[in-house]
Amino acid sequence: MRWWGWGDRSHPPALPAHALGFLRETVGIAERPRPPVALGNVALPPARLSAGTAAELRAVVGEQGVRDDHIARVLHAAGKGYPDLVRLRAGLPEGAPDAVVYPGGREQLNAVLELCSRSSVAVVPFGGGTSVVGGLAPLQGRHGSVVALDTSRIGSVLALDRESSTVTVGAGMRAPALERYLGDRGLTLGHFPQSFEYVSIGGSAATRSAGQASTGYGAIDRMVLGLRISAPAGEIALPPLPASAAGPGLRQLFVGSEGAFGVISEVSLRVRPAPRERVYEGIFFEDFSAGMQALRALSRERVLPEVARLSDRQETQMSLALAGSAGLKSRLERAYLGVRGYGEGCLAILGFEGSSGSVSRRRRQAAGILRGFGALPVGRSPGEAWLQGRFAGPYLRDDLLTLGVMVETLETAAQWSRLPGLHRDVARAIAGALEDQGTPGLVMCHVSHVYETGASLYFTLLARQRESDPIGQWLAVKAAASEAIVAGGGTITHHHAVGRDHAPWMQREVGTGGLQAIASLRAELDPAGIMNPGKLEPVSSRA
Amino acid sequence: MRWWGWGDRSHPPALPAHALGFLRETVGIAERPRPPVALGNVALPPARLSAGTAAELRAVVGEQGVRDDHIARVLHAAGKGYPDLVRLRAGLPEGAPDAVVYPGGREQLNAVLELCSRSSVAVVPFGGGTSVVGGLAPLQGRHGSVVALDTSRIGSVLALDRESSTVTVGAGMRAPALERYLGDRGLTLGHFPQSFEYVSIGGSAATRSAGQASTGYGAIDRMVLGLRISAPAGEIALPPLPASAAGPGLRQLFVGSEGAFGVISEVSLRVRPAPRERVYEGIFFEDFSAGMQALRALSRERVLPEVARLSDRQETQMSLALAGSAGLKSRLERAYLGVRGYGEGCLAILGFEGSSGSVSRRRRQAAGILRGFGALPVGRSPGEAWLQGRFAGPYLRDDLLTLGVMVETLETAAQWSRLPGLHRDVARAIAGALEDQGTPGLVMCHVSHVYETGASLYFTLLARQRESDPIGQWLAVKAAASEAIVAGGGTITHHHAVGRDHAPWMQREVGTGGLQAIASLRAELDPAGIMNPGKLEPVSSRA
Repeated sequence: MRWWGWGDRSHPPALPAHALGFLRETVGIAERPRPPVALGNVALPPARLSAGTAAELRAVVGEQGVRDDHIARVLHAAGKGYPDLVRLRAGLPEGAPDAVVYPGGREQLNAVLELCSRSSVAVVPFGGGTSVVGGLAPLQGRHGSVVALDTSRIGSVLALDRESSTVTVGAGMRAPALERYLGDRGLTLGHFPQSFEYVSIGGSAATRSAGQASTGYGAIDRMVLGLRISAPAGEIALPPLPASAAGPGLRQLFVGSEGAFGVISEVSLRVRPAPRERVYEGIFFEDFSAGMQALRALSRERVLPEVARLSDRQETQMSLALAGSAGLKSRLERAYLGVRGYGEGCLAILGFEGSSGSVSRRRRQAAGILRGFGALPVGRSPGEAWLQGRFAGPYLRDDLLTLGVMVETLETAAQWSRLPGLHRDVARAIAGALEDQGTPGLVMCHVSHVYETGASLYFTLLARQRESDPIGQWLAVKAAASEAIVAGGGTITHHHAVGRDHAPWMQREVGTGGLQAIASLRAELDPAGIMNPGKLEPVSSRA
Repeated sequence: MRWWGWGDRSHPPALPAHALGFLRETVGIAERPRPPVALGNVALPPARLSAGTAAELRAVVGEQGVRDDHIARVLHAAGKGYPDLVRLRAGLPEGAPDAVVYPGGREQLNAVLELCSRSSVAVVPFGGGTSVVGGLAPLQGRHGSVVALDTSRIGSVLALDRESSTVTVGAGMRAPALERYLGDRGLTLGHFPQSFEYVSIGGSAATRSAGQASTGYGAIDRMVLGLRISAPAGEIALPPLPASAAGPGLRQLFVGSEGAFGVISEVSLRVRPAPRERVYEGIFFEDFSAGMQALRALSRERVLPEVARLSDRQETQMSLALAGSAGLKSRLERAYLGVRGYGEGCLAILGFEGSSGSVSRRRRQAAGILRGFGALPVGRSPGEAWLQGRFAGPYLRDDLLTLGVMVETLETAAQWSRLPGLHRDVARAIAGALEDQGTPGLVMCHVSHVYETGASLYFTLLARQRESDPIGQWLAVKAAASEAIVAGGGTITHHHAVGRDHAPWMQREVGTGGLQAIASLRAELDPAGIMNPGKLEPVSSRA
């Protein structure tokens, strides 16, 4: 993975040429490209791990299992959030782990945690390295040093129970490797977050990740049937069960624990038959409200597709402007902008997957319902285009950063009744904050995950980067958006997790009592307080 | 509710006359009916609540809000488990609460918990009083006295959000009252445990209850979107959200908390459109294995009915023997026992509910799948009969107890791959334990809730009561069954909760680490340790 961005170093630029003009006209771009600094020029603090501790760690995980070379530290210095990349590209990350530790299995993992507890070394669990909320910031809390605990050596398939449709994997397994393994056997997990190419299964569980197809396959919390977590106080193993009434839901307590209680080492997941058929298609609605009502009706009638995305007017216009396919654009314009009066319309992508019978049946049923909301099917091209570009976002962001364009995404979820107000207020808050920064920008949104009682909203913003203080600019926008989200009754995060960036809003989300419960579990499972300090909760609550 | 059993005092005997002969022939009955003692002869310990504390409680909840009269104490002395009823009917409950407290709202509830913490009074939360696992035993732990905290005055509908399909209710609301409220508005919760007539919504959430239609509507854990819990350390309010990635799943932590962290005071639940159509029908399979495979296939193809029950051979034979409808019995026998070779067959009840389109579509699809497993539809009579008798179990039990017959049910859930072995081993363990007690009996089982990755097994046992030591007899059987369950990879409880009876097996279920996590939360949220001592965890872990 590029240390300053996303994907393989050899990946070609992702931004289509004609988008450049659009950006120049709308948000503005830098006068000259602003590439990342050279790797050698990334400034890291000196590694502070004592020679004794390093030797003890090597005794546990082997010589190759501890690294403190420049590239290893840079690659584990941050996640892939916008501020992470701004800092990395400038060669100025906020510190780095003193070392990276790669345990080769559960026993080594337990021994590392025991050693770090004893030696007062903070531990930042590191799966695919894809956090966008500061979850990987190398914070040491009250400890003398900090290591990144990379789970990539704990990443094999441990058991497949075909009869029960359950697979158990080491937490470090990457999503593509698991999908390949399952695909060879006619199965799928169905977890496709935008970070799919790099995300780990353990990291997905620890962050309550939701994939793009969560409307059909469920988010990771619905997939996890059992797990094993190594906490400094000991291991907790919860075997896969379809359901249980044996007390509080401990599985769901560890899903979303963000490395604050320990390191998830194994995960048992529900799998499904690989789809025999996939149909992704575009549907146009007269406005966002009609589209939301239509999705709600599909949910109520329980004929939802696997993927259900509904772009608001701004995102729809932007998609059409950037579509790159002049044919599609003009066809859509002829059909809707002109003749049908859908000029301000909203595009939805519905993706049906499954057996051919299930796909055709649900499409037929859905079509009947959608007609009642004035839906206009526009064929498969937009669906196929979305499918092809579904993991492109992070690559585009790299190109935009080179152009001096700030791009950030943030997300929430709420009851259906709150969504229209939330959509309006969060978009306004972001736009207002960008204007206050002197960098008016574009704000767009889509519904990305649909539930019976509500849905998620996923916002994207684009603005010219404030060269003098890009992090201050970002913080102002993030705070304005977050305030609007909690004020509007949304969750501070639907699928990006809390990390460091959302921690200030956790009290509004779960109350002081909820924070107290989390803090007491941390104290119990991690008496030395080494696990991911400064994440999940406001820092003050761990003081 | 009858203090010694179930239902209204005026309820007629439920056991059909012809069942008497069957029981006499099979397990044996007492020579003379054994009715409960007179209410006045129930022996209670003296109420030990100090006059000062009682006065303080009355100052909080009003004169009518504290009761310590004989009938109030007897009605709150136990739940409705087999050993509870054996003891009550003999006039020898294991103690009783020193008083029953009825807070009239959240503020009073908080004040009661504050007062009990300060005065060292143990608190047993009491909803509908239907626990069958000792969850209501009036244990005082290390405290000087114990009160039952009855939530029946916190039982109104607080908010209905039709657009979001969400209702918020006071925890003491009974399930039938909520269904009536929702039914008047074209909605349903879909939570129909066998205890439906009395169970409270808060109690259902606190015990991870699953209704008979959970295959379609989900168990309570899937319905709860938000809740409010009053803990001695303070209130925690988690508003209804369709989904969130904001850290550990606190909602699911409090679902199943069994009054050990505090008292759930409000619950927000997902509701659904009331079904326009209901079709309940009988299906015969050649054996239990074929039936399980068929249910698994329905689950995999995602065309499950709302109710899916599959009786094993023993239960099927028993149902036919007791069917009461000679017509049905002989028709079934003609069709299967004789001609079709299904003499040792297993009966399933599939209940489809929803719009008429959804019901007919799923029935058609299901029929196609079921044929592949040799299913023989036997029409709606068995389905209608089941539907009519779905809440009859506890009434029958009262009659059986009068006849000196022990009847107990217990349940588990596991992955599909483990179910055949679990079914065999648990049934054998129960039968063996009954023989060891000198009271060989009948053991039967059905699959009661179907999931993608597994299902639940629900066992019923009948035997002649050992008059000299009915509790010892029950304990021996319960222990044997529980050991077989955990050894076979099942959960110690699928939907009856832990209470006191399953607490000894919690360590096998969640490990010492899991118990530690629960204990630390108790210590944090309930520093004085007043909340439901002796429940949920093995007693020693709270010492």
